[in-house]
Order: sequence, then C-alpha cells, then structure tokens
Amino acid sequence: MTDTFDFDRYDRIRPIRWTGDALELLDQRKLPFQVEYVTCRTSQAVYEAIHALTVRGAPAIGIAAAWGLVLAAADIEAADGGEAARKLDPAIDHLNLARPTAVNLAWALARMRRKLVDAGTDWREVMTREADLIAREDLAANRHMGALGAALIAPGSGVLTHCNTGSLATAGFGTALGVIRAGVAQGRIAQVFAGETRPWLQGARLTVWELQQDGIMPTLIADAAAAHLMKSGKVQWVVVGADRICANGDSANKIGTYQLAIAARHHGVKFMVAAPSSTVDMGTLSGDAIHIEERDPQELFGIGGVATAAAGIQAWNPVFDVTPHGLIDAIVTERGVIERPDAVAMQAAFGS
Amino acid sequence: MTDTFDFDRYDRIRPIRWTGDALELLDQRKLPFQVEYVTCRTSQAVYEAIHALTVRGAPAIGIAAAWGLVLAAADIEAADGGEAARKLDPAIDHLNLARPTAVNLAWALARMRRKLVDAGTDWREVMTREADLIAREDLAANRHMGALGAALIAPGSGVLTHCNTGSLATAGFGTALGVIRAGVAQGRIAQVFAGETRPWLQGARLTVWELQQDGIMPTLIADAAAAHLMKSGKVQWVVVGADRICANGDSANKIGTYQLAIAARHHGVKFMVAAPSSTVDMGTLSGDAIHIEERDPQELFGIGGVATAAAGIQAWNPVFDVTPHGLIDAIVTERGVIERPDAVAMQAAFGS
Repeated sequence: MTDTFDFDRYDRIRPIRWTGDALELLDQRKLPFQVEYVTCRTSQAVYEAIHALTVRGAPAIGIAAAWGLVLAAADIEAADGGEAARKLDPAIDHLNLARPTAVNLAWALARMRRKLVDAGTDWREVMTREADLIAREDLAANRHMGALGAALIAPGSGVLTHCNTGSLATAGFGTALGVIRAGVAQGRIAQVFAGETRPWLQGARLTVWELQQDGIMPTLIADAAAAHLMKSGKVQWVVVGADRICANGDSANKIGTYQLAIAARHHGVKFMVAAPSSTVDMGTLSGDAIHIEERDPQELFGIGGVATAAAGIQAWNPVFDVTPHGLIDAIVTERGVIERPDAVAMQAAFGS
Repeated sequence: MTDTFDFDRYDRIRPIRWTGDALELLDQRKLPFQVEYVTCRTSQAVYEAIHALTVRGAPAIGIAAAWGLVLAAADIEAADGGEAARKLDPAIDHLNLARPTAVNLAWALARMRRKLVDAGTDWREVMTREADLIAREDLAANRHMGALGAALIAPGSGVLTHCNTGSLATAGFGTALGVIRAGVAQGRIAQVFAGETRPWLQGARLTVWELQQDGIMPTLIADAAAAHLMKSGKVQWVVVGADRICANGDSANKIGTYQLAIAARHHGVKFMVAAPSSTVDMGTLSGDAIHIEERDPQELFGIGGVATAAAGIQAWNPVFDVTPHGLIDAIVTERGVIERPDAVAMQAAFGS
C-alpha cells in the first residue's frame, strides 16, 4: 500500500473545457454511448446546459456557471469591475436559477462577483483568471480530499457509491469518486459497487463508464439491492458526494442517499460524505431548510426514449434527499475530516 | 367507510386462463404496452414461461405449474393415479426448477401429486379439478386476506408497495395489492405509492397498469425515493407480498423489500407482508436458509432493449432479499393476521 500515486493514470476524463471564447461541455446525457462535447458561446447556452443536465454534479455546475458569467461579460461594456458587476447582475441572477439545490452554483457566482467588484479596467482578465482558478482549485481540492477520505478506509474494504461524483461531476478526479480513486490506487479498496441511480442512471451511465476509463472495474447494482449487499458483508463504507452541507452537517445529495445512510447504520457500515468546502452552506442551519428540487415526472416514465410505464400515470420525482448528520460518520472536504459531524464540529471547521 | 365492496369493480385482470387443453398466460414481459396472451400446450412451454417471467408472482407461478402438470399428463398413459404420479415425477422435478425462490411452485406441485397418488382411473379429471381448485382457492384467499389486511390500516392512510403482487401475480385480486384494493375500496387508503422495482420494473410496468384498470391511480416513485417519501409523512404502511415465509417469520420478497423494511422501521412506518398460507414454509427455519435467485446481470444493462450502461461491465443482480421478522409488523394470510411475527407465533398459526 502506498499513500501516493500517479493521479493521471486514475483520472483521464475532463467534462469542462474553456477554449478562450467558448465553453465546451461533455454531454453527460449521451454518455456512455456517445462522447460528445457541446459548445456554449453564450451565458444563456450555459444556463440551458446546466438546466438540461448536459453538465451536472455540484462542483461542475459551479465551474460551468463561472465560465457562463465570463461569456455574459462579452455582451457588456464597463469602465471597471464595479460597473461590470452591476451590469452582470441579471446574468448572475439568471444563472443562479438553472438548478435550485446545488450550493456551488451560487457560491461560484458570488465568488466571481466579489472578485469583479474589486477589479479595475482589467476586469475581463480578472474574471477569466478567477473562473480558471475556481476550476484548478476544485481539481486540487479533490485530490487532497481523495487522500484524506481514503485514509479512513481499511485495506481490503468494499465500498458502495451512488450517483456520479467523479471527474465528470467536477473539474476532475471527483469528490466521493476521488476518495474511491485514491483508495483503489492505495490498495485500500478491493471492490467498488455503484448503484444505478434512477431515474437518470448517473451510476449506470456515468460512474461505471468513468471508472472503466481509468481501469477500475466496478460492480453495478440496482438501487434497491443496497441493503442486501450490506447484509452480505461485502461493503464497509458508503462514500457519497453532496450538493449542500448545512451548518449542522445535514447533507443534501442525490435521491437515494438518505436510504443508503439508514441501511448503512442498520448494518454497521460506515457512511462518508466527500465534498469541497464550497458545498458547505453555514447559512442553512439544517436540512429542513433545504429546498428539494423536483423534476419532471416524465423522467420516471421511460429510459432513453423507451417507455417503462403505462401512459397517463402520476409520479413523484424528487431529485435530492437530505441525510441527517446523525447518520454520517465522516464529512471530508479539502480542509480536513470531520468525524461524527454536528453543529459544534461544523462551526469549529467552517465558522467565520 | 364500508367493510364490503364490489370485488369485480376493483379487479378486472386475469393473468392465467385454462382453455380445456391449453394454458393461456398474459405475457407480463410485454405489459403495459401490449396485452397479449401466450398459449402453452406443453409442460415444457409452461416451464419456459415461468423461467422467462412470462408469468410471474409466487401464487401465479404455482397455479401455472399445476396446469403445466396437467399438460404433462397428456403425454402419459396410466391405469391409476399412483402410476401417473410416478410417471409424472420427471415433469414435477423439471417444473420445480423453473424458479428457485418461490415456495408456491413446489407447494402447488406437491399438492397436485398428493391428490394424484390417491386417485383411481379418473386421475385425469382429479388433476384438472385440483389445478382449478388451486386457482379458485387462491382468488378466495386473496379476497379474504385483503379484508384482513385492510382492517389494520387507519382511514386516510398512505401506503407504499413494491413489485407487483396483484391480480397479475395471482389467480386474481392479489396479495399485498389485494390489501390495497380492499383498503382503497373501504376508504382506508387515500394514496397509493408504487416503487419502480428495478431491474424488471414490475412496479412501473405492472402494478401501475393493473391499478389503473380498476380506477385506482397510484403515484410512481423511484425505488431510491422511498425513505424520503416516508420522511415526508405521506405513508403509514408499507404493504408487500412474499415469495417465501420462514418458520420464524423471515420473509423473502423482491429485491428492495428489505431496504423498505429498514427505512420503515427508522420512520415508524408500519410494515405488512401479505401472502397466501401456501407461501409459508415451516421447513425453512430462518431467512439464512433461503437460496436467493440471482439473475442475468444483463438485466441491469438495459431496459426494453435500450442500453443503460457501458459495455463490458460487471453487475450483481440478486432478485430477492430477506426481511427479518423483527422488521415486520404484521404477516397477513387468508388464515389470519400475525402481529409481530416470530417463531412462536408462526408455530401457533402454522405448526402441524
């Protein structure tokens, strides 16, 4: 077992590319069957790409939105950053509406605006540098987080993950999947299980594909098979990402995460949330205050254009759920590990 | 609220029809998009229909197998039932292998054989009458079970079910879905939620369709949304069927049932198993002794011919799981209700 490894060998995918005047997004609706980048030349195109899930994953959404703001800046003239910020506020407000649950979206846009307000006549360069920095910091954070999270996992363990929290969901390396990448590379993780993650099948379509690219062969399971898997003793950790972490440690993540946390506790399986500190929202006191996005019921009526249910039915399609902090054994960010998170521990780590 | 209701109004589907010399099975692989019966003229055709899930649901499998044995009898000559039974043993053994988990299959075949052994020259008629009786008793049992189970549910409740345990899975009316039919008809159940039930989507394809035929409009959810639904307070009972109930009350049912039971207990939601007494297997002491069928991983790689995962991956596809009796609030059979089932209560109800 080694604590260092060749990052590039285990991390080949990049979902977001800035060309200098356009944003290229790996179209995650078409993976794993087509590997195709969509080119966004306007802020509105980025808004639509975020809304339509062309790009998804909380950190990736934040990065895409930052570049979206850079694209919006091409349409305005301003003498300095302060004037530019005021003129870009409608674009910021609009981009903020693209997805309601991920806090990174608002975080990245607020960070861009803060930097912009202080900028002088070189505000365009400042914006471009800041968007690039957000992306580079995310990658670095993920690598660090991966090492911190993997260190919690005993050699030879099995892990279960949910949704996609990998390179595809970030600037690269991934959050929960970064922990898993690091754990596999270090010989700590012997077997990786991935839940399908209905309705959008991020696990089946994205996580499995992404790990394959890096030579890691996960085992896919139906979401409903997770508790049975835990009972079999084959997994010691559930490792998931987060779209928003509250001031008390409650964590919003893809629908199904909460169910995994309950089953993990029931079986004595440990439960880890890995996310960049930009996901932490100390202004939201607990999960009760999180607005849970509900998407079109239509997503439950079919897969890839093939109907899976009778016409004319009703469905309920919440996209996220909240895992209360009491079910979480460790929250891992690039700033460190918080074991048994609660309001006190979160305040100590993230209080201003 | 009324305790009686018009059965036919709430129960229009029949999955198994005997024509006198052939068995017609409603092809459940094609529902809800095509309503098509497959005609089986041989025991082998029935074996294949059970194995391929043309007919599914523990009670329906038992009934189909009984008719399969009647079809096998057309190929033999025998002076009396005893000779016929010996000659039909290979067919019985073969039919028994069609699905490994459902105890009703073995139960129905054993019952047919017992009846046959005692029959004289009229053994063919005896077999036909017995197969017909198994089907008619199943329907009557389901109606009775439905009333018994519904009586446990407080007016205005929401219920969540999993897989399909309805008319489609039985001779008619259904087991868990029979409880729900009765509960809706009596005004006890205000809202019905159905999990999709990946990989085969029995919930999305069959349960939703079947209830629609009877004017009951359920709400479909992703399997992974169940715990989040429970937290919302919208369901008071989970009502599921069983493929095998052990001597201590441990119950095998569709993969995902165990996870629902854990989540239900976590939220104080009640958990009911409804199944005919033929599902009870007092010879299996606990769930640990149940062989869990694992099906082709391919079932997790697509839906309706559309791929949902990258090629060349691994998957684990157990079809059932076991819910330990400690997580079950009530087992309902046509013989009565067992609250908080355990070995003592099961012995009192089903011990010989």
